Amino acid sequence: MNIPFEKLRSEFKRVLLSLGFSEEKAGQCATIFAQNSRDGVHSHGLNRFPTFIQYVQDGLIVAEAEPTKEGGFGAIEQWDGHLGPGMLNGGFCMNRAINLAKENGISCVAIKNTNHWMRGGTYGWQAAEAGMIGICFTNTIANMPPWGGIDPRLGNNPLIIAVPRKEGHVVLDMAISQYSFGKLNLYKSKNEQLPLPGGYDSQGDLTTDPGVIIESQRPLPIGFWKGSGLSLVLDLLATVLSQGRSTADVTNAGSESGVSQVFICIKPDGGVKTETLIEEIISYTKSSRPEKEGGAIYYPGENTLRTREKSIQEGVWVDEKIWKQVQGL
Amino acid sequence: MNIPFEKLRSEFKRVLLSLGFSEEKAGQCATIFAQNSRDGVHSHGLNRFPTFIQYVQDGLIVAEAEPTKEGGFGAIEQWDGHLGPGMLNGGFCMNRAINLAKENGISCVAIKNTNHWMRGGTYGWQAAEAGMIGICFTNTIANMPPWGGIDPRLGNNPLIIAVPRKEGHVVLDMAISQYSFGKLNLYKSKNEQLPLPGGYDSQGDLTTDPGVIIESQRPLPIGFWKGSGLSLVLDLLATVLSQGRSTADVTNAGSESGVSQVFICIKPDGGVKTETLIEEIISYTKSSRPEKEGGAIYYPGENTLRTREKSIQEGVWVDEKIWKQVQGL
Repeated sequence: MNIPFEKLRSEFKRVLLSLGFSEEKAGQCATIFAQNSRDGVHSHGLNRFPTFIQYVQDGLIVAEAEPTKEGGFGAIEQWDGHLGPGMLNGGFCMNRAINLAKENGISCVAIKNTNHWMRGGTYGWQAAEAGMIGICFTNTIANMPPWGGIDPRLGNNPLIIAVPRKEGHVVLDMAISQYSFGKLNLYKSKNEQLPLPGGYDSQGDLTTDPGVIIESQRPLPIGFWKGSGLSLVLDLLATVLSQGRSTADVTNAGSESGVSQVFICIKPDGGVKTETLIEEIISYTKSSRPEKEGGAIYYPGENTLRTREKSIQEGVWVDEKIWKQVQGL
Repeated sequence: MNIPFEKLRSEFKRVLLSLGFSEEKAGQCATIFAQNSRDGVHSHGLNRFPTFIQYVQDGLIVAEAEPTKEGGFGAIEQWDGHLGPGMLNGGFCMNRAINLAKENGISCVAIKNTNHWMRGGTYGWQAAEAGMIGICFTNTIANMPPWGGIDPRLGNNPLIIAVPRKEGHVVLDMAISQYSFGKLNLYKSKNEQLPLPGGYDSQGDLTTDPGVIIESQRPLPIGFWKGSGLSLVLDLLATVLSQGRSTADVTNAGSESGVSQVFICIKPDGGVKTETLIEEIISYTKSSRPEKEGGAIYYPGENTLRTREKSIQEGVWVDEKIWKQVQGL
């Protein structure tokens, strides 16, 4: 079913206020959850809200924690998130990175002891809205084996790269696993095969069967050995730059809380030439003949805008069962 | 056959001197080509040398060109490479980025009108040797279709991320295509199938047949749609930050010359805690049970050190035919 954005937002806010969130922080968190559903990222919108609430009740997320500055040098800074809501810490850090980049051209803000930031793209859009290039990434609990291994030792460590553009920002928002466990579960519940191999079965053969991958705990990193290396390096950067907890440390603690994140911002030349260069790249990419008749090539973020427009006009799609669950909280 | 590093280096230098390179620049280029072969990256060592020489003779690479500063703001700078040798421009830019990061914590040096930097890892090792985190990438000629398309419109835009580490730097050096055309040709010449699907056949089905992929011109980006987006975004960053030529522009010109590159440097906290965090991440990753008995998990860069050691002790392996060709230049 579809419901108006404002209704979704105010329902989230009601629940958060009942859990001791301040008026301001409840509003900020509610807006981000509602925006994620509005943009079609249901897994980190409504569908994730009950888990977020559970984490608050379990003390893994501290509603009113404020980040504090731990150190800094030039255009880089380290912050401690004190287990505050990941979306608020994330928004704070990207805002800090935007301001530092305005002064220094480029900046890097790293934060430790923060929490799941829900949709990583949120902070990419934030940078792009401010006219900035935004690059950010987070570590996670281990959910993917390294290349050549069978036990999960790497996070899927989402990476976001955003480039501002008048006609619609380019926002790449990707986890380093080919399919998230959320996606695997979705295909499994529909009794469908994955469109492409997404992991290994217990014999070590590539498979498109989501249930088999969930059982083997061996989802594929993008690009096989390449994604395995990329995930490791993103964890190294997030941990070293924030002096925080690594995927190893988060995993050993048992719950995905207290993760480490990095927010890099770069100030592009905002002139006409930049706009021309961006359009040249996008139109050249789109000029490839589509694989399927009537098909088209999309840039990262393009479909988000389409979904957003639709949600605003027709209401935000929600899973009825989860929506009822949230209304009952 | 194996030959001593010094012999390889001096042979390269001899040829470069005969083409009008100065003593200094000939030495620098020769060293990098020899180092690439020494580290096992033959495709960008000896094997690439004849092509490099051809590019110099064709005027696509200008031996004695010096980079000039075009602009800058805070810790970001733009340079023009004036079609100089890509390795010299690359080394210059990473050195500039290292110095800027020493002052500002983080820095970004972008260069336009430069040339193929050969092994991207060279500049990652350079940053790590200076105790810095290095992130760099380049655009290339179009050699890969965007997701959903069949005509090559994206470069394989190599991405390098290096983290300094006493016991051996971690250096991720990866192109965004799953297999390079060099690798595809290597498998084809040995009449072997790829270990994993590397592209599409003319019917649009995934295949491990290298010859079929070379014919279809449809190699796979890592992570399918994810690598397609990543490649596009890296081209956007390289082009926008350097105000240089995009993959579209380079491709339309017909030769892979005058590309755009970005060198980002970050100064990590070099204390004991950082070392401990890095070791924790690496040892946790390696603790995964190997897929095959007797197998092991390696971090990016680990095998490079092994190959380097072997080359120093036993001589650098060279393809005899190409070695003779270079001796005859």
